[in-house]
Amino acid sequence: MSSMGLPATENLLETKEINERSFSSDGKAHHHIYKVGIPPKQNLFKEFKATIKEAFFADEPLRHFKDQTKLRKLVLGIEAIFPILSWCRTYNLKKFRGDIISGLTIASLCIPQDIGYAKLANLDPQYGLSSFVPPLIYAIMGSSRDIAIGPVAVVSLLLGTLLSDEIDPTKHREEYRRLAFTATFFAGITQATLGICLGFLIDFLSHAAIVGFMGGAAITIALQQLKGFLGIKTKKFTKKTDIVSVMKSVFNTAHHGWNWQTILIGASFLGFLLVAKFIGKKNNKYFWVPAIAPLISVVLSTFFVFITRADKHGVDIVHIERGINPSSVDKIYFSGDYLSKGFKIGVVAGMVALTEAVAIGRTFATMKDYQLDGNKEMVALGAMNVVGSMTSCYVATSFSRSAVNFMAGCQTAVSNIVMSIVVVLTLFFITPLFQYTPNAILAAIIISAVIGLIDFEAAILIWKIDKFDFIACMGAFFGVVFISVEIGLLIAVSISFAKILLQVTRPRTATLGKIPRTSVYRNTQQYPEATKIPGVLIVRVDSAIYFSNSNYVKEILRWLIDEEEQVKGDYQTKVQFLIVEMSVTDIDTSGIHALEELYRSLQKKSIELILANPGPVVIDKLYTSNFANLIGEDKIFLTVADAVAYCSPKMAEDP
Amino acid sequence: MSSMGLPATENLLETKEINERSFSSDGKAHHHIYKVGIPPKQNLFKEFKATIKEAFFADEPLRHFKDQTKLRKLVLGIEAIFPILSWCRTYNLKKFRGDIISGLTIASLCIPQDIGYAKLANLDPQYGLSSFVPPLIYAIMGSSRDIAIGPVAVVSLLLGTLLSDEIDPTKHREEYRRLAFTATFFAGITQATLGICLGFLIDFLSHAAIVGFMGGAAITIALQQLKGFLGIKTKKFTKKTDIVSVMKSVFNTAHHGWNWQTILIGASFLGFLLVAKFIGKKNNKYFWVPAIAPLISVVLSTFFVFITRADKHGVDIVHIERGINPSSVDKIYFSGDYLSKGFKIGVVAGMVALTEAVAIGRTFATMKDYQLDGNKEMVALGAMNVVGSMTSCYVATSFSRSAVNFMAGCQTAVSNIVMSIVVVLTLFFITPLFQYTPNAILAAIIISAVIGLIDFEAAILIWKIDKFDFIACMGAFFGVVFISVEIGLLIAVSISFAKILLQVTRPRTATLGKIPRTSVYRNTQQYPEATKIPGVLIVRVDSAIYFSNSNYVKEILRWLIDEEEQVKGDYQTKVQFLIVEMSVTDIDTSGIHALEELYRSLQKKSIELILANPGPVVIDKLYTSNFANLIGEDKIFLTVADAVAYCSPKMAEDP
Repeated sequence: MSSMGLPATENLLETKEINERSFSSDGKAHHHIYKVGIPPKQNLFKEFKATIKEAFFADEPLRHFKDQTKLRKLVLGIEAIFPILSWCRTYNLKKFRGDIISGLTIASLCIPQDIGYAKLANLDPQYGLSSFVPPLIYAIMGSSRDIAIGPVAVVSLLLGTLLSDEIDPTKHREEYRRLAFTATFFAGITQATLGICLGFLIDFLSHAAIVGFMGGAAITIALQQLKGFLGIKTKKFTKKTDIVSVMKSVFNTAHHGWNWQTILIGASFLGFLLVAKFIGKKNNKYFWVPAIAPLISVVLSTFFVFITRADKHGVDIVHIERGINPSSVDKIYFSGDYLSKGFKIGVVAGMVALTEAVAIGRTFATMKDYQLDGNKEMVALGAMNVVGSMTSCYVATSFSRSAVNFMAGCQTAVSNIVMSIVVVLTLFFITPLFQYTPNAILAAIIISAVIGLIDFEAAILIWKIDKFDFIACMGAFFGVVFISVEIGLLIAVSISFAKILLQVTRPRTATLGKIPRTSVYRNTQQYPEATKIPGVLIVRVDSAIYFSNSNYVKEILRWLIDEEEQVKGDYQTKVQFLIVEMSVTDIDTSGIHALEELYRSLQKKSIELILANPGPVVIDKLYTSNFANLIGEDKIFLTVADAVAYCSPKMAEDP
Repeated sequence: MSSMGLPATENLLETKEINERSFSSDGKAHHHIYKVGIPPKQNLFKEFKATIKEAFFADEPLRHFKDQTKLRKLVLGIEAIFPILSWCRTYNLKKFRGDIISGLTIASLCIPQDIGYAKLANLDPQYGLSSFVPPLIYAIMGSSRDIAIGPVAVVSLLLGTLLSDEIDPTKHREEYRRLAFTATFFAGITQATLGICLGFLIDFLSHAAIVGFMGGAAITIALQQLKGFLGIKTKKFTKKTDIVSVMKSVFNTAHHGWNWQTILIGASFLGFLLVAKFIGKKNNKYFWVPAIAPLISVVLSTFFVFITRADKHGVDIVHIERGINPSSVDKIYFSGDYLSKGFKIGVVAGMVALTEAVAIGRTFATMKDYQLDGNKEMVALGAMNVVGSMTSCYVATSFSRSAVNFMAGCQTAVSNIVMSIVVVLTLFFITPLFQYTPNAILAAIIISAVIGLIDFEAAILIWKIDKFDFIACMGAFFGVVFISVEIGLLIAVSISFAKILLQVTRPRTATLGKIPRTSVYRNTQQYPEATKIPGVLIVRVDSAIYFSNSNYVKEILRWLIDEEEQVKGDYQTKVQFLIVEMSVTDIDTSGIHALEELYRSLQKKSIELILANPGPVVIDKLYTSNFANLIGEDKIFLTVADAVAYCSPKMAEDP
């Protein structure tokens, strides 16, 4: 075998030119072998910088700033923080038309919903409506053109549950509200912080877990509405959210607590809303039907109650205070026991809210094919909640309403501004009219809204594609429905994490064989016709070899050799060569150690270790650690075919 | 393009035979394309079973049980739990000779060490020596032939620190001791539990973090010995373990607290021990020199103190109670506040002890080339600590002494039995002689023992191979030295985890090009001579596409297209085909979603999405999710070369 004659480290720095080796071990085989490339060594600082950039700023937030003058950089910087400055210059009447229509549509949808969602968070209705500030901030700072900002059902429920674990919302209204603002403040801070440097953390809730969590939350929310829907007045109604407690409460009150007038109103309008939803779903052209149905229901039912004075017959009505809510800066707890409680709740609610908002933002960005800067987006959402917490709002984010906004033809974030203005006008002028709006109608609106969160099709698809994902999905679902929202969330996160741990500790390996009439080697399980070469075991390791799996990889390779040597009936094959396909992307110190140990144990059995196709990072580390010298540089090949070609003449020699 | 004509699901079940397609899109290219194999569908139960087996029982603990009679299974089962039953049948005099020599050697090493280690854990010396029970249990249940069981320095220090955070060891001796037994009990339970089903958890401390942690612990332990080494009597000596506090204490006592006789004894014997160590290291033949040096030091120094009555001149001496320690079953806290504290401490100490023991066991198993069953090994270690906690022992494990055992030529676990017997005899007959043994000699012995834990070479290698690992290593090291053992451990675990998170969220991607004169496509960064095909972008994704990275993968692919279309100076290339090398091992629902979104956004830009070389799991899921039908089954190829061959004629058509 020819040796390169150069010490490994020098070799590293110069082998960039095309380099071919030829060897003829026994005169028979004369084969051109293409040498494995070693990438040029980077200096330390560059290496660090690249790692950090990849980890935290994967989408290169600063790439537009390259090669610009200082003034231009400043302008670009300000534009980056306030995207409105860049898009407002091309804003025109046509866009405004789209925005005003969509703005009015989502406003009509949001007014009744916000009132209902505030109740899920155990807050007074006006705190739902006061959420006109966040959309304004988002319109200035956000980079998505399509998402509609406001309180959402699941976050409201989660916030309500977490807050009332700490403070009783009926006995200590003021403290409860203050804690809600504190949590909102820290939710915003959390979101902005994630946006600045830890954005990857929000990818840790798997799609499957979210589907389950949302479905469970939807059922929980719908159950909560039964109280308003059935007109149950008794204060004995449970504060727990699990299905067993709620159903018990519902049936215990059946004989004296239900109010038939309320049920009649609720049921008929729920029917109306569901039909409207169905129409919108059947034909996208009629998307506006379900969008304005809630407002129509509110108007009609209010009018109906006013006419019949049903409120005198036990039909509960909504109470909303008129006017804009005052500043709440001085209400946020910045010290004391509630500071840490508010902080914890804020972190959880903020992250869940962010997961929803980013997911929906990405979906629309893909649909309209524009780039969405994840980091910037999170900062905008964070800033909006920080400001919101100071203006009597609770955590706002974006979810199902965004689809309506999109279909109504919104062009820019101006639709959010339009919506805000409508809400403000409502707070000033229309709230007095709400005094005849029955609670049951809000219950019906919320039920019809959250039903859409139960995604059967997604659950079925998850079942088909990945059973482990399905367990995560069901775990989260049943956790929410039978225990509580927090437990469901905890289960979702834990199972998601368990999957990651499995992934990094148990990488897959495949035994390769030669596909007939090609020089391609592939998994013999997938291609049963692929032929193995007797005496040569070819294994591909399908993951970076890190400390978390290095030992497992080593053991599995030794185990595969044992298996290969036993299986063949009477005839025992002696493995002479182990070719490891090193297409793995990375290896660390533990991985190198494992390879060394493998090499030594193979030596004892006189099996040659041969590596094929190591990637740039791997080959670099093999040389740095001297492992390449240990096994011999000529045992590292570009392809499995080359490695096999190296083995074959030796096999003939040594039968 | 020819379509398979079968619906995807039927197709899945039968396409096992060799299957070739040929296509001729424009009459020019007539190319034989090998079809991508789809593995036979497994039934649900098998699929689940395989997943669980892979996760928890990777080394197939039950494979020997297959195809055996019931009686044989029972015998095998008992032998599996008590390996002594299988190896004792082939035990002979020759093996016994090796075992007795190695047993005596490690006994001579362990007696002085154990006394010193007990002091690190703030326990009386006899509790170190009483650890003769665990080696006996291990000899019966353990599967490693080489490891020597006993207390070790780092775990003793960790336990001492954690325990004294809860109870003051000088004021409440009895409670402290009871908590120590409680922690030991739960350490055993933790180890056994991990052994039964969660063994992969111990792979989560990276090699790099362990090197740093050990080095830091060694320095901390050495610093702790300064008190005994310098003969400092003052009670003002700090209880903290960080270097700043300790050095302050040392220098504050310099003018009145140091004792020159003690220093003289300590320094001269430390010199002797280090020289012995050096001799043993230089020549493996003299491994016994450092092994018996501690005992010689003890004997000589004891004799010296007895002659000179140095104990009357301020030289502190050791106090050991004679006789075997009593049962401590009734001393373990099974209720009350200390139960949970003991549990927590036990979990931490148990896992650290296990990490050490398993690492060392694996090393020897590789050196002597026998299989070590990780699960069984952990259960044995756990059982041994549970029994130990009931016989007045604290957490025992295996570390540096095992190397001595190995070099002394131990053959089986009998060497541990020999050691135990010697220790028992010592407790009965020799302890009275210890009453003239100076404390300084124990300090010298411990210092010389822990110096070996500082592994400069490993640290340098880590620096060379992986900078991120080096950060973990240094983080753990400085955490231990400057703050405390727990903080160091926490840093080690956190950085190890951060690395895993990075790995799963930021998979690498590579742009591929054709290596000249081959049909092989490789990373263009590694092989700068590899040529790209204009209009075709070939990207390989190097990780399973899971929820944690699916979005990142999608964005990076879109970003690579943008980059490809911009970079080329004046001439702008239009990308017409995106070939994704799907050698990734797995994909989940989120991954499929990401691909779908990618496909849709590519459609908008009229770029064709082509997949090459999907693995068995991936191809299965592509069909199940209907994605294969969406993009067209004929867009999935065995190799990148095939995929490029598909693109080329189309490129000619459509310039």
